[in-house]
Amino acid sequence: MNNYACKEMSSTEINTNIKLPEPTLHRLPWYLAYVKIVQAQGVEYISSTQISRAIHVDASQIAKDLSFVNISGKTRVGYEVNSLVYVLEQFLGFTRQHRAIVYGVGRLGAALMHDSGLVQYGLEIVAGFDIREFQEENYINNIPVYHIDNFAEMRAALDARIGILTVPVHQAQEAADYMVANGIKAIWNFTPYRLHVPDNIVIQDTSIYAHLAVMFNRLGNMQE
Amino acid sequence: MNNYACKEMSSTEINTNIKLPEPTLHRLPWYLAYVKIVQAQGVEYISSTQISRAIHVDASQIAKDLSFVNISGKTRVGYEVNSLVYVLEQFLGFTRQHRAIVYGVGRLGAALMHDSGLVQYGLEIVAGFDIREFQEENYINNIPVYHIDNFAEMRAALDARIGILTVPVHQAQEAADYMVANGIKAIWNFTPYRLHVPDNIVIQDTSIYAHLAVMFNRLGNMQE
Repeated sequence: MNNYACKEMSSTEINTNIKLPEPTLHRLPWYLAYVKIVQAQGVEYISSTQISRAIHVDASQIAKDLSFVNISGKTRVGYEVNSLVYVLEQFLGFTRQHRAIVYGVGRLGAALMHDSGLVQYGLEIVAGFDIREFQEENYINNIPVYHIDNFAEMRAALDARIGILTVPVHQAQEAADYMVANGIKAIWNFTPYRLHVPDNIVIQDTSIYAHLAVMFNRLGNMQE
Repeated sequence: MNNYACKEMSSTEINTNIKLPEPTLHRLPWYLAYVKIVQAQGVEYISSTQISRAIHVDASQIAKDLSFVNISGKTRVGYEVNSLVYVLEQFLGFTRQHRAIVYGVGRLGAALMHDSGLVQYGLEIVAGFDIREFQEENYINNIPVYHIDNFAEMRAALDARIGILTVPVHQAQEAADYMVANGIKAIWNFTPYRLHVPDNIVIQDTSIYAHLAVMFNRLGNMQE
C-alpha cells in the first residue's frame, strides 16, 4: 500500500510538531510553491532532481528536507504530487487558521490588514489595536480596530495567540512586553528592534527594511 | 580633529559601494534602530558594549560590523551617536530615494503601495503594473497603476530600476524575465518562487509566508 497516498492521510497522522531547522523551514515553501505549479499542470509524480532543476536547490538537500516531513519518494517515479502538496501544506501550517492581532495600526499594520492573502497561508487577522482614539466601530478591510486599553479583554475573547508588531521602533519592546503579559505566545516582529522575550515566546523577525538595505547595497555594487 | 564628525562628512566621502556580508547588512538596521532611540534621548556617545547589552548581539561582532562602514569609536567614550546614525543611514541607502515599481497589483502589491513608510527607508514606489484592465487614471495611495502593456515605455520614462514582484507564484518567473528584459536591475521578490535571473541582476527574496511557516512551526512546538 502506498503509505503516503492522500486518502490514507488525515491531519492527525502528520506530526507537524517536529522542530525543523530554520533553513529547512525556509526552503519548504519554495518546494510547495513549485509543486503546486506542476500539480496545476496535471503532473502526477515528481523527483527531487526535477524540483532541483526548477528551483536551483541541490537534489540531495531537497530529499533531506522532505525526509523531515515524513514523505518518501518511490524509486524512479519520485514523489506523488498531490500527497506532497498535502503534506507540505499541513506541515507548514497553511491549512489551519492561526488567529492573530495587529498591534500598531499605522501604515504597515493597516497594509497587512489589507493583505487578505495571509489567510491563504493560515494567518487570520481578527483585530487591530492602536493607541490612537478611533471612532467606535472602526474597521479596516472588515477587521475591527480597538484602543489598546481593550487589549487584555479582547485578546482573550478573540483567543488570538499571535501578535503582529507594527508599532514605531522606539515602542517595540514596551509593546512586546504588554502583549506577552496579556497572553500573546508568538510575536511577528516587523520592527527592526531586537526584542527580548521569555524563552517560551516565539519571535519571528521580518524586517522588510533590512531586506531593502541589502538590496540597495547589492544594487550599488552592480552599477557600472 | 574628529575624523567622523558630521560636519566633515559628505555623502561622497562615504564609500557605500563596499559589498558587505549579508549577515552584517541584516544587523546594521538593528544598530541604526537602537542608536536612533538613544539619539532621541539626547545621548551623545555610545559604546559597542552598550549597544550589545540593549540588542543582544556580541560587542565584538558589533565593532566588527561597524568597522565595515568606516566609523571608529573613541577609546572609553565610544561612537559619536549623531555620526553613527548619519553614516548608517547613508550606508544602508535609506537617505536616497530608489525608484521602484510594483509588478502585480493584487492584495500584497496594493498593500505595499499603501505602505508610505517605505519612503522613509529610501524606496519610492512610482507606479504599479497589472495585467487587469484598469480604468484610465487608476491610483492607489496617489500612485498610478498601468496595464503591463505600457511597462517598457513607462519603466524607462519613470527611470525605475527596482521591480517589486507581487504576482501569483506561477507567473513569477515570466514576470521577472519581462521586467529584466525591460530594464529592471533589482527584483524584490515577494513570491515564494526561486527566480532565475542573469548574474548582473539583484534578487532580494522576502517571502513573508515562509516566515509564517517558521512561526507556526515554532508555536506548535511551544504548546503545552
